[in-house]
Amino acid sequence: MTNPSILILPGDGIGPEVMAEVRKIITWFGDKRGLAFDVSEDLVGGAAYDAHGVPLHDDTMAKAQEVDAVLLGAVGGPKYDNLDFSVKPERGLLRLRKEMDLFSNLRPAQCFDALADFSSLKKDIVAGLDIMIVRELTSGVYFGEPRGIFEEGNERVGINTQRYTESEIERAARSAFELAMRRNKKLCSMEKANVMESGILWREVVERVAQDYPEVELSHMYADNGAMQLVRAPKQFDVIVTDNLFGDILSDCAAMLTGSLGMLPSASLGLPMENGRPKALYEPVHGSAPDIAGQGKANPIACILSFAMALRYSFDQGAEADRLEAAVEKVLADGVRTADLLGEEGVTPVSTSEMGDTIVAAL
Amino acid sequence: MTNPSILILPGDGIGPEVMAEVRKIITWFGDKRGLAFDVSEDLVGGAAYDAHGVPLHDDTMAKAQEVDAVLLGAVGGPKYDNLDFSVKPERGLLRLRKEMDLFSNLRPAQCFDALADFSSLKKDIVAGLDIMIVRELTSGVYFGEPRGIFEEGNERVGINTQRYTESEIERAARSAFELAMRRNKKLCSMEKANVMESGILWREVVERVAQDYPEVELSHMYADNGAMQLVRAPKQFDVIVTDNLFGDILSDCAAMLTGSLGMLPSASLGLPMENGRPKALYEPVHGSAPDIAGQGKANPIACILSFAMALRYSFDQGAEADRLEAAVEKVLADGVRTADLLGEEGVTPVSTSEMGDTIVAAL
Ligand SMILES: CC(C)[C@H](C(=O)O)[C@@H](O)C(=O)O
Ligand SMILES: CC(C)[C@H](C(=O)O)[C@@H](O)C(=O)O
Repeated sequence: MTNPSILILPGDGIGPEVMAEVRKIITWFGDKRGLAFDVSEDLVGGAAYDAHGVPLHDDTMAKAQEVDAVLLGAVGGPKYDNLDFSVKPERGLLRLRKEMDLFSNLRPAQCFDALADFSSLKKDIVAGLDIMIVRELTSGVYFGEPRGIFEEGNERVGINTQRYTESEIERAARSAFELAMRRNKKLCSMEKANVMESGILWREVVERVAQDYPEVELSHMYADNGAMQLVRAPKQFDVIVTDNLFGDILSDCAAMLTGSLGMLPSASLGLPMENGRPKALYEPVHGSAPDIAGQGKANPIACILSFAMALRYSFDQGAEADRLEAAVEKVLADGVRTADLLGEEGVTPVSTSEMGDTIVAAL
Repeated sequence: MTNPSILILPGDGIGPEVMAEVRKIITWFGDKRGLAFDVSEDLVGGAAYDAHGVPLHDDTMAKAQEVDAVLLGAVGGPKYDNLDFSVKPERGLLRLRKEMDLFSNLRPAQCFDALADFSSLKKDIVAGLDIMIVRELTSGVYFGEPRGIFEEGNERVGINTQRYTESEIERAARSAFELAMRRNKKLCSMEKANVMESGILWREVVERVAQDYPEVELSHMYADNGAMQLVRAPKQFDVIVTDNLFGDILSDCAAMLTGSLGMLPSASLGLPMENGRPKALYEPVHGSAPDIAGQGKANPIACILSFAMALRYSFDQGAEADRLEAAVEKVLADGVRTADLLGEEGVTPVSTSEMGDTIVAAL
């Protein structure tokens, strides 16, 4: 039997630094837990553009389609801000999502006890917060046609198309209901059905899927109210399901509530492959943070917890994922902190690499 | 010379209650400050649907086009949830915005000193917060064609179109720069230019308009990061300009930060009419709150402050607007509170109507 395969795409900015720490964790699981992976590495984003003139080489795309899981660091940076739209770093990431058909993006917004004070929200509003946003990731206004900038009369017009088929909504909704079943059986769907017909269809399909999950308590909220409620009382939610664009904004808002942005992982899942594993890409919620890149200041935990999600969702190693998550919590409880989380009394400041080592030691 | 004219559209839910208090204020300005208005009243939203089968009668639309300012309460309620999309209460409001061509929606997010404790955010993050969101209000995905639910193969597809012409972006941007000039000369424009071509055009046009305002410090932010930054450190902003849909979500998020949702007004402004006044509609940011309607619990302040905005932006009575705003602040400082703002020690709970009377007394 061959080992499960992982493709590492460190990307830009702090991506390579945090990914180096994930490599230590992967090695540990191979050495100590008999979970050996075949790990390969390649370029994405600005790094790929620098090497190949495109933010994702076709060969890399082909490799991503073959492996059991892709781990991605982050893409983008000021150096690439003025590139043509078609070769911007983000296009590399969007191509991966689209061609791997990763329709279900799981974004936990979790407040770590040791870090509740870092939230800009009052402690009692966020302490213990643990919600999961399921964002549809392969359709909507991110990919709808027509799109572009066109001449019209004597001026230009910028056009994008929000577009959802019933089956696209259905599979995203189904993955959210499945997740709700494994959590607290509460699902809130967010759209703007009061303004957008695509939102009306969204709500209708979610209602239909709900019939297969009678145990799940389903509610609907307009996305603007959703943003308000996330700020007002985020603990009212368990699982939230929403479209690609609303999911982009609402999940970032939710992530920031926790005060743990450098801590939050994500999983993007597609259809099962021949071996039964879903197509999958794991990445931290934070970006490439070019301002602190290369200084040992980055927090590798979001990327490490993304690997924990890979253990859980790709490799069916829930207990090992728990082990890794527990190690991270222990290290935090011990007061070990990267530069993004300093400020309290009595904590131990560490570099990116020391944080990786400390987590390995805690394992 | 005839008096300036105001059309009052109380709408649904708490709309009529809060508008009754605005009427007291209008009367006071007529009696005591020699500012007499010709006030008429009509139906909008569910109330109009009940009477006419449409959420805005053509006659009402025609009246709105003729008056100097429209004051709107709120629209919508569960009673109307299952109406056909085309006659939902919201369509009445959207028709007003579109046909009056109210492209510039000003939404202040202001934290009142006396109420900083009501925010779910830490007091130091929001105390003194005073930002203004300028939301483009007549275009984008709210109005773009094609739109609807269509058959495609053997399933349906929901479609909406995000669509911005250069001139639409330009006039919204210009109104935001003008506002920034009268405030702290800082403007942040938000879009998703990394993903949407309409965002690229948006950014380009904003840059072009900026050349006419060299004193204004302009920055750009992706809308998802904008949501994060609003939660993390809202005081970094002065004026924010963004499109219709992002503006809907980001302004609600910003409003909730302040803890003063029942306090926040808005102005929607269009082109100058023959008399030089802009087409204008004023409404509270809060909704129709059907759960508390008719119980004397609603806070009329958002609607009263919307009238203050009318004094400032439609009637060139900045000093009178200041007077009204000062009266509101005094009443709050005195500890007078409607039901939404109870909880502190030593405050005086009042009904909707008592709040109106107290503000009149403070004037
Ligand atoms: C980098 C960008 C293309 C991306 C998105 O908009 O989806 C990011 O914001 C995210 O949320 O993963
Ligand atoms: C009521 C609704 C149509 C409206 C909108 O989406 O614009 C509301 O949310 C607002 O922000 O004014």
